[in-house]
Amino acid sequence: MNRYTIANIPGDGIGREVLPAGVQVLSAVAQRCGFALEFRDFDWSCETYLATGKMMPDDGLTRLADHDAIFLGAVGYPGVPDHVSLWGLLLPIRREFDQYVNLRPVRLLPGIRSPLRDKSTGDIDFWVVRENSEGEYSQIGGRTGTGEDEIVIQQAVFTRRGTDRILRYAFDFARKLGRPHVTSATKSNGLYHSMPFWDERFAAIGAEYPGIATDQYHIDILAARFVMSPERFDVVVGSNLFGDILSDLGPGVTGTIAVAPSANLNPSRRYPSMFEPVHGSAPDIAGQGIANPIGQIWSGAMMLDHLGEAEAAAMVLAAIEAVLRDPQAVLTPDLGGNGSTAVLTRQILEKLQGR
Amino acid sequence: MNRYTIANIPGDGIGREVLPAGVQVLSAVAQRCGFALEFRDFDWSCETYLATGKMMPDDGLTRLADHDAIFLGAVGYPGVPDHVSLWGLLLPIRREFDQYVNLRPVRLLPGIRSPLRDKSTGDIDFWVVRENSEGEYSQIGGRTGTGEDEIVIQQAVFTRRGTDRILRYAFDFARKLGRPHVTSATKSNGLYHSMPFWDERFAAIGAEYPGIATDQYHIDILAARFVMSPERFDVVVGSNLFGDILSDLGPGVTGTIAVAPSANLNPSRRYPSMFEPVHGSAPDIAGQGIANPIGQIWSGAMMLDHLGEAEAAAMVLAAIEAVLRDPQAVLTPDLGGNGSTAVLTRQILEKLQGR
Ligand SMILES: CC(C)[C@H](C(=O)O)[C@@H](O)C(=O)O
Ligand SMILES: CC(C)[C@H](C(=O)O)[C@@H](O)C(=O)O
Repeated sequence: MNRYTIANIPGDGIGREVLPAGVQVLSAVAQRCGFALEFRDFDWSCETYLATGKMMPDDGLTRLADHDAIFLGAVGYPGVPDHVSLWGLLLPIRREFDQYVNLRPVRLLPGIRSPLRDKSTGDIDFWVVRENSEGEYSQIGGRTGTGEDEIVIQQAVFTRRGTDRILRYAFDFARKLGRPHVTSATKSNGLYHSMPFWDERFAAIGAEYPGIATDQYHIDILAARFVMSPERFDVVVGSNLFGDILSDLGPGVTGTIAVAPSANLNPSRRYPSMFEPVHGSAPDIAGQGIANPIGQIWSGAMMLDHLGEAEAAAMVLAAIEAVLRDPQAVLTPDLGGNGSTAVLTRQILEKLQGR
Repeated sequence: MNRYTIANIPGDGIGREVLPAGVQVLSAVAQRCGFALEFRDFDWSCETYLATGKMMPDDGLTRLADHDAIFLGAVGYPGVPDHVSLWGLLLPIRREFDQYVNLRPVRLLPGIRSPLRDKSTGDIDFWVVRENSEGEYSQIGGRTGTGEDEIVIQQAVFTRRGTDRILRYAFDFARKLGRPHVTSATKSNGLYHSMPFWDERFAAIGAEYPGIATDQYHIDILAARFVMSPERFDVVVGSNLFGDILSDLGPGVTGTIAVAPSANLNPSRRYPSMFEPVHGSAPDIAGQGIANPIGQIWSGAMMLDHLGEAEAAAMVLAAIEAVLRDPQAVLTPDLGGNGSTAVLTRQILEKLQGR
């Protein structure tokens, strides 16, 4: 029997509510499909920071390293500045474990209403491949001068290795999907050094994949096209910042961020990959038991897929879709229902069991 | 009689087609309202670059400096890399003339169909105030290392002076509009130095305006909210890059980029301000005489407003809206019609003359 050890980090806010829902569904599907998941809990969060001054212990990364995957809820909470909480937990995990791919589906699910006219299930269905380890997210820089004369420097660092590998991942992924079309997000008209380089590498790597069509748009007009013609995209590749923006905008266009999943992948499998919903810790609804668990559960499906349990992954996604398609389903308030996290999770479990 | 000298830079592609339309309409309204506009043409473009190696002559900025305003079409054309054409003309004008405000309305006009469901004229109506002189758009940085080891650095520079003045502009503008609510675009969870500083200054400047409500969103979720709830915004302020993205996304949400105007303002009036449509040179339709002139004409209205001719500005905008509201109007192909640039311009001129 295949056995996988998973590091659970519920984190903050609704992360603590949706992560257990994910664990429940994954455990159920594992049992049905005949593999074992061993979950270990790591209670690292903004609370930990307030108590200890650290988001995770000094040996945190080492303790995570010997797991097959990391299953994360959400990080960040009022009282701890975002740049402290994120650079103290989420971002170091992405970097130290070389999870250089952030993969996010943009898909209009059944039963969910897009804010766009005339779009229904299946009309919007593409992937954002985001660089996840370098680029604009950098701690290089600082502040100098005082008072009125203060200046702040923020440096972005793009390596050829880092750029080439994410571009290759995007092309390989498009080929694997059978949708041979990759769109690059750029801004080479304004960002003088980084983006002309990005374009150059996109052209060079693209040339290695003659069967795959390419196009590129500046991020400003690309964002507008996500709204005006989302059906045109197959695989969209972007830098850390551009990918971040597009992979929230995409779920916005498909009606809700609450159900969107993401995978932080180390394709070499030398280190564990991490799976987390796109939504954050949502302090405004935390503690009420009404958070939508679908983003977490779908992230769990991506984790199973990564672990090699593709059939189980497909079953979880099918169960989510079956609930959303069911006119009798009781959904969470963000989807217009009055159900709780527990109630929605239970229905997914039922569909999974074929009920 | 008030007299203004305007430097026309048609630039490239459809810029050369819509700029004359703008000039026609502005000349007509000037005559009706009793002021004089003297237009002088500056034929600087990518063609100039291909012929001379420069986008504009060495004394270009000096030659523009003694005009009351600059009226620009579009810059950029295939064959000249964007970062060459833009950093050779548009961006130096913005910087050298200290046009530190880029002001762009996001407004759903009559007769234009938003891609969003349930949104009609008046439902979407807000402003993006973009920092236009520093930040992420910087020529500082470069490439080092060779082959596989190449590294590219792109530096963003935020000054306290530059940040404070754009924030103050946004607050003053919200007050002047009578819509006391300013939203800040940030990304302080990922961009370690620049955006925490931006947030700090937003809080500090906001405190100077106790009557104005504030909120802030990370750029990723803010982009999603532009789609999910655009009716919530009044004035949105962002850095150079974030403002750029939002001010294309906004027009995307209102149905078309083709009609969106922009003003590059030097509020001190020490240097000329510049007015240009948001759309680019559109090589795909250039030369066919079918480009939509509304973005250029509306930019002209913003120019009149800046020059102190508010009544004339309002008349131009009213004429645009009257055409769009008229079910008999013949629009350009981008708006679903089969009219030419000239035909649409003629109808705006007719409405202006009360016909
Ligand atoms: C052409 C480009 C450099 C420019 C910018 O990014 O500022 C354009 O997108 C704009 O918004 O005016
Ligand atoms: C929380 C934040 C640092 C993070 C990011 O920007 O990467 C989030 O927005 C995401 O997309 O995972």
